[in-house]
Amino acid sequence: MIIFGDRKIIDCDIHNELPSLQTLYPYLPDHWVAYCNESAFVGPDANDYPKGAPTTAKPATKPASGNPPGSELALLREQTLDAWNAEFGILNCAYRVTSVHNQDLAASLATAINQWQIDEWLNKEPRLRASIVVPSQNPLLAAQEIERVGDHPGFVQVILPVRSEAPYGNRRYDPIYEAATRHKLAVGIHYGGAPGLPSTPAGWALTYLEEYAGMAQVFQSQVISLIIEGAFDRFPSLRVALIEGGWTWLPSLMWRIDKEWKGLRHNTPWVKRLPSEYMREHMRLTLQPVDAPPDPVHLRQVIEQIESDEMLMFSTDYPHWQFDTPAEALPLSLEEPLLGKILAENARAFYRL
Amino acid sequence: MIIFGDRKIIDCDIHNELPSLQTLYPYLPDHWVAYCNESAFVGPDANDYPKGAPTTAKPATKPASGNPPGSELALLREQTLDAWNAEFGILNCAYRVTSVHNQDLAASLATAINQWQIDEWLNKEPRLRASIVVPSQNPLLAAQEIERVGDHPGFVQVILPVRSEAPYGNRRYDPIYEAATRHKLAVGIHYGGAPGLPSTPAGWALTYLEEYAGMAQVFQSQVISLIIEGAFDRFPSLRVALIEGGWTWLPSLMWRIDKEWKGLRHNTPWVKRLPSEYMREHMRLTLQPVDAPPDPVHLRQVIEQIESDEMLMFSTDYPHWQFDTPAEALPLSLEEPLLGKILAENARAFYRL
Repeated sequence: MIIFGDRKIIDCDIHNELPSLQTLYPYLPDHWVAYCNESAFVGPDANDYPKGAPTTAKPATKPASGNPPGSELALLREQTLDAWNAEFGILNCAYRVTSVHNQDLAASLATAINQWQIDEWLNKEPRLRASIVVPSQNPLLAAQEIERVGDHPGFVQVILPVRSEAPYGNRRYDPIYEAATRHKLAVGIHYGGAPGLPSTPAGWALTYLEEYAGMAQVFQSQVISLIIEGAFDRFPSLRVALIEGGWTWLPSLMWRIDKEWKGLRHNTPWVKRLPSEYMREHMRLTLQPVDAPPDPVHLRQVIEQIESDEMLMFSTDYPHWQFDTPAEALPLSLEEPLLGKILAENARAFYRL
Repeated sequence: MIIFGDRKIIDCDIHNELPSLQTLYPYLPDHWVAYCNESAFVGPDANDYPKGAPTTAKPATKPASGNPPGSELALLREQTLDAWNAEFGILNCAYRVTSVHNQDLAASLATAINQWQIDEWLNKEPRLRASIVVPSQNPLLAAQEIERVGDHPGFVQVILPVRSEAPYGNRRYDPIYEAATRHKLAVGIHYGGAPGLPSTPAGWALTYLEEYAGMAQVFQSQVISLIIEGAFDRFPSLRVALIEGGWTWLPSLMWRIDKEWKGLRHNTPWVKRLPSEYMREHMRLTLQPVDAPPDPVHLRQVIEQIESDEMLMFSTDYPHWQFDTPAEALPLSLEEPLLGKILAENARAFYRL
C-alpha cells in the first residue's frame, strides 16, 4: 500500500454492520428479546443501503461466512486499517434505531448496539474509535445513553442520521448537544435515516436515485438550521461532522446564507457572526463520496472556495462503494500542508485523537 | 442609464402585484365575490415576501398611492423597462393560488388574475410578457386554465411555485406539462409557495431566514425530480426556467447527480443521458438573486463550471431588493459573447421572443 507512502492516515467513516438482530439478544432485556421473537420484528425499516445496490458495498467486502459486509472485525481491519496504514479509524454504525417507533425499544436497541461495539470492536482493536448510536427521536432518552457510555475512551462521537423529524437546530435536540459537549464528544450527522417524513422538501421522491443524490440537500438544510436556530450559540463547544453527504455544495451554501444573513439578521439576533464562520469553526466534512466533477481543476477550485484547509477529513466510507481504486480515494493531487491536514491532522484535531 | 450601454436587455423576472383582492372582483363569478365578502377571505396565506422584510421590496418601489410595490404599471414601467432599456420584461405574478385549499376558488382566482394580467398589463405595454397563474395543486384544473389563455401572444410561461405537494417530476403534473408544451409555453418554477408541507426535508424551520436561504435546496430537489422521474423524456420539448432560486449550487448538483446516475441508472432506464445534459438542454436560471461569493474570481469559476453559456438569463427580480445599485445587477465583468447571451439572447431563445 503506497498510495500515501508510509504516511499514517485517519479514516473518518468506516461502517461496522450488525450481523443480525440476534447479535443483540445477549445485550437486550428479556422482554425485548421475547417481543422480537413474538412479533417477527426484524429490525429498523430504514433502507438507506439496499442490499445489492452498487452504492451499498464493494463485492470484495462480503465475508466468506455470508454475513453482511462490514460485520466482521478481521476482514474490516484488513481492508481498512491495514490496507490504508491507518492510525485511527472511526466507526459509524448505521443501525437506524431512529426509525423504530417504539422509543423504549429504540433506546434498548441503542444500548445493546453500543455494548456490542465496546465488546466486539473497541475492546478488540485499539486503532478503532466509534460513534454512540442513540434514539435521537427522543432526545432525553438519547442523552441518557450518551450519559451511560460517553466517558468510554473508545467513543468519540454521537451519530445522528441526517434525515430527522425536525431540523437539528431545533431546541428539542438540545439534550443531545448538552450531553455530547459535556462528554467532549463530537456530533456526527450521517447520510440516511427514515424519520417518516419525505426525503425532499416537496414530498416523496419515487426512486432511490433521487433519494441518494438528494441527500445533499438534506445536509444543506441541517447546516442552515444548526447555525440559524442557534445551536452553536447555545453550545459553543459543539463540533459537528457531516459524514457521507458530499461537500462540493459547501461554497455555494456559504455564499447564500452569508448574503441572506446580512439582510435578515435582525430576526435572529443570537447569530452574531457570518454563518460561514460558524461552519469553518464548528463543522467538518468527510471526503467520500466526492461529488467529483469530470475536470479536476474544478474540484481544486471548490477546495479553494471553501477558504479553509481544516474542513475536510479523509474517509473511505467502507464498505460502501464510492471508488474503485485506492487512487480514487483522493481524486486530486494535493500539496502539503493541505494533504496532511485532510489525510489525518484535521480529524486528529476535531476528534481530539 | 448606461450600465449596459445602449444594449437592449431582457428582464426575466419582474413581479406584478395585485393591488388587493378586490381588484379581482370584476373577473370573479358572483358567488365567489359573495364568498370572499362573507368569509373575510383576504387571499392566499403564503407569506413568501413579508411586508417590510428587506428582501421583499426596495423602498423606492412603493407607489405614492399606498398600493403595494409592483402593483402600478406606470411606476413599474419606469423602474424596469425604461430604466434598464429593456426590449422585453417577463412578468411573474406571485399570487399564490396554490395555497388556497378550495381548489375551485383557486381556479377561479387564477382565471381572474390572468384576465387582469391581460387587461392591465399585456394590453397596455407591448414590451411586457407574462406568466400564466394556475392552480397547480390540481393539475387538471391548471391544464384547463392553460388551455383557456395559452394562445394569447402575451403569455410565454406557466408559473409554478417551487414548493409543491409532490416533486415536480411526479406524473401527477403531466397535464400541466402537456398543456404547456402544446401551447409552446415554458414552465417557470419560482421561489416560494405554501403547499402545507415543511420547507425543509427535515421538517419545519422556525425562522424566515432559514426558509429564504433554504429555498435553494427546494430548487435542487425539483431539478433532480424532473430529470430522474422522466418529465423531459415524456415531454421532450419541455423548457423549465428556475427563477429567483440562486444558481451557484448548479455545478455541484450536476456533478453529484451525474455520478450517482452512472451507478444507479439501471433503476431508471428512461433516463438515457447524463442528468447534466438534460439540465443544459432543458433548463435555464435567472440571474438574481446571485448567491455571490465575496471574491468575484470564485463567481467566474462557477460560471465556467456550468460548462454552458446558455443557462443564465438576466433578471432584476423587481421590486424585490436583491441589489442596491444597477452595477450590482451583474456582479462581475463578462466578455462577449457571454455578456450578450446572459443579458438578452438566452432569454430570447428560451422564451421564443
